[in-house]
Amino acid sequence: MSETDEKVTAKDTREVIMEATFRALSKHGYSDLRMRDIGEEMDLTRQVIHYHFDGKYDLMASFLEYITEQYEGSVEIDEPGDPRRELEARIDQCLFGPGFDQFTHWDRMKVYHELFAHATNDERHQEILDEHYDNIRASIVQVVERGIEEGVFRDVDPVLAGQHITDTIHVGRERRISLGHDDAPEKAREAIHEFVLGSLYLDE
Amino acid sequence: MSETDEKVTAKDTREVIMEATFRALSKHGYSDLRMRDIGEEMDLTRQVIHYHFDGKYDLMASFLEYITEQYEGSVEIDEPGDPRRELEARIDQCLFGPGFDQFTHWDRMKVYHELFAHATNDERHQEILDEHYDNIRASIVQVVERGIEEGVFRDVDPVLAGQHITDTIHVGRERRISLGHDDAPEKAREAIHEFVLGSLYLDE
Repeated sequence: MSETDEKVTAKDTREVIMEATFRALSKHGYSDLRMRDIGEEMDLTRQVIHYHFDGKYDLMASFLEYITEQYEGSVEIDEPGDPRRELEARIDQCLFGPGFDQFTHWDRMKVYHELFAHATNDERHQEILDEHYDNIRASIVQVVERGIEEGVFRDVDPVLAGQHITDTIHVGRERRISLGHDDAPEKAREAIHEFVLGSLYLDE
Repeated sequence: MSETDEKVTAKDTREVIMEATFRALSKHGYSDLRMRDIGEEMDLTRQVIHYHFDGKYDLMASFLEYITEQYEGSVEIDEPGDPRRELEARIDQCLFGPGFDQFTHWDRMKVYHELFAHATNDERHQEILDEHYDNIRASIVQVVERGIEEGVFRDVDPVLAGQHITDTIHVGRERRISLGHDDAPEKAREAIHEFVLGSLYLDE
């Protein structure tokens, strides 16, 4: 087996484990998850997990990196043009999700939000989630800054606005998942438009 | 023992169990919590828990009722006067917490937010949390409505405004707990003032 083949195989194996972890988490939830539940979700032998990961804690940290990278990579915005259109497109993609092949936005988000709540007990998970939150916020802050520079947005604190929009997206998703409020993302969108964008956009 | 004595004792026992549950949850987190961890936090025998509650699931539902009722009861607002002052006082109490004898606002909130994330898998927990969220939101909506009636607030959709304020409080607390952002409640307060109250208050 050439080095390239080995890399391909290692990458594939990792992805197989990650997707099995996803299915197992969706079924059992984080607190009840056992390594053998993940084994049951894949064709490979369970020993492969132990070869690649140093226990549940290590596997979960890699899994968090996997889903946050995948999520960030999936937010696609056309050539930056009108800052308003870019800002609204980003908000909608974060709230309602881009399509994924194997799992819907909400399957992913359910797992993400459960791990988010656990991060308080776990420094490495906290770091990964913090970086992800920061990346999403930065992408919003950037377009707010551009809108201010181009003179189409009011001169607000872009970090405060970006943080508030990111927070509102997060809680809208969470309320749908935890409380079963199906309209929460739609209401979050409405609140962002009414209270943030309404005061941000000039000459409308 | 008279009926009154029995009631008092049952109430005391329940409170002892609830406070022991609090300490055990704070130490171990929800997913690792075992009934015997709760037993270790109290002077009464562990059998008392099994006498009063039908397993961990039932105990947790009662515990959620206990902390949400306690929390709602603790938000004290002086005689309703100026709607602005009442609204800001409610926001601050929800964000920064009233004082409690045995535990701080953040000890309580850590447990509350962890159970919130789990509610997706648990219908009874979901109902209790939903009712609590609804009570907090209703208290905010009510004062927004009063401000509109008295002509000091702009004529916005009071439910949209109340929901958005409640959501922003929730996510500010959660970001502090899950990501360790100590300034998140303060930033949530700033965002509410900048984006919501700024557009709500007339003649300022």
